[in-house]
Amino acid sequence: MKTLKIPEATIMRLAVYSRYLERAEKQGITTVSSAAIADGTGVSPAQVRKDLAYFGEFGTRGVGYHTGELSSNIRRILGLNRCWSAVIVGAGKLGSALALYEGFLSRGFRIVGVFDIDPKIVGKHLGEIEVLHVSQLEDVVARKKAEIGIITVPASAAQEVGERLVKAGVRALLNFSPHVLNLARDVIVRNVDFSLHLEVLTFNLVFGKIKKEVAEEK
Amino acid sequence: MKTLKIPEATIMRLAVYSRYLERAEKQGITTVSSAAIADGTGVSPAQVRKDLAYFGEFGTRGVGYHTGELSSNIRRILGLNRCWSAVIVGAGKLGSALALYEGFLSRGFRIVGVFDIDPKIVGKHLGEIEVLHVSQLEDVVARKKAEIGIITVPASAAQEVGERLVKAGVRALLNFSPHVLNLARDVIVRNVDFSLHLEVLTFNLVFGKIKKEVAEEK
Repeated sequence: MKTLKIPEATIMRLAVYSRYLERAEKQGITTVSSAAIADGTGVSPAQVRKDLAYFGEFGTRGVGYHTGELSSNIRRILGLNRCWSAVIVGAGKLGSALALYEGFLSRGFRIVGVFDIDPKIVGKHLGEIEVLHVSQLEDVVARKKAEIGIITVPASAAQEVGERLVKAGVRALLNFSPHVLNLARDVIVRNVDFSLHLEVLTFNLVFGKIKKEVAEEK
Repeated sequence: MKTLKIPEATIMRLAVYSRYLERAEKQGITTVSSAAIADGTGVSPAQVRKDLAYFGEFGTRGVGYHTGELSSNIRRILGLNRCWSAVIVGAGKLGSALALYEGFLSRGFRIVGVFDIDPKIVGKHLGEIEVLHVSQLEDVVARKKAEIGIITVPASAAQEVGERLVKAGVRALLNFSPHVLNLARDVIVRNVDFSLHLEVLTFNLVFGKIKKEVAEEK
């Protein structure tokens, strides 16, 4: 078996390059250099070349990459040459914000169901979508062929929701609850913890200061 | 000047190890191996050792790391040996969800101000905090010495809000708007785009399938 060992950080950066390339395409820019991509995304040019080389994208020396070609190749690598259907379980503030998030559709993610257990929330409309009772979860996942589940329920309900989603046919989960899901190994799970992002900031605040202090001592 | 070139992915993983170590500490586990950390966080043991080695943490062969010591060293590296004050600008669904997010306080992040421009939202309470009019932004940032700004306004307002936050004294920004902020180079900005997380999932859904197909052909 051929194993592709691609760092997750590379995948995240590809998604960022993809956004940059789409903007460049819209502006009518037909070729881009790794330096331009680097400059537009805050990554080093060497890192851009390394990331693209994982997928056999080498560009032409002195010319760079063909914008449209590179853009569509990266979209294909990220699985974005098709649409994906996702459901959201938990229609509280965060779930509602995600149901209304415009950035999903532009990248090919369609929210086909939003569920809650609270009778005060069930029946409400979020844009064009109606919040359904969670008892309809399995039915909607099967009927709409949803492959992605987004979990925005409290920690105490997350494990059960995760199990139900997987049993219903969902293969990948984005988990916003602080609960660590315990599921079959072939289920793809990504945990989103907002504090993690803040900790990258504070690391940089503290280390930036240390770097400056070291510089001043010299 | 001594430059510390630490990959951002390492910082993110340190934050994840930190959560694991705190749980282990609470359970009374006094020493942990890199294999145990790896198993508990879904990272390879070699990666754990490599990440910790950036900071001179090598453990003791056959014994591992002292849980409490490693935990507090990582917290210090992440800048979490103190509290940080943050403000949220934009009290829509996402901003409100973040203002009420319990995960912040447990990691030392205190939300000291939430602002909006909409008279229907200003004056509302989110837990113990009252949403203030954005005209009070500069005053609150200065008075509460907020160092972090969280931007959850629409794209069209993000640049202005970013500039005001920086001018008021904020040094690091977490930007949830799709607008790419153009600010002074020494401001630390981290963009959060929810589709990015979904794209890591779809990459794995597609590549997982390719890997299986390659395996079946053999």
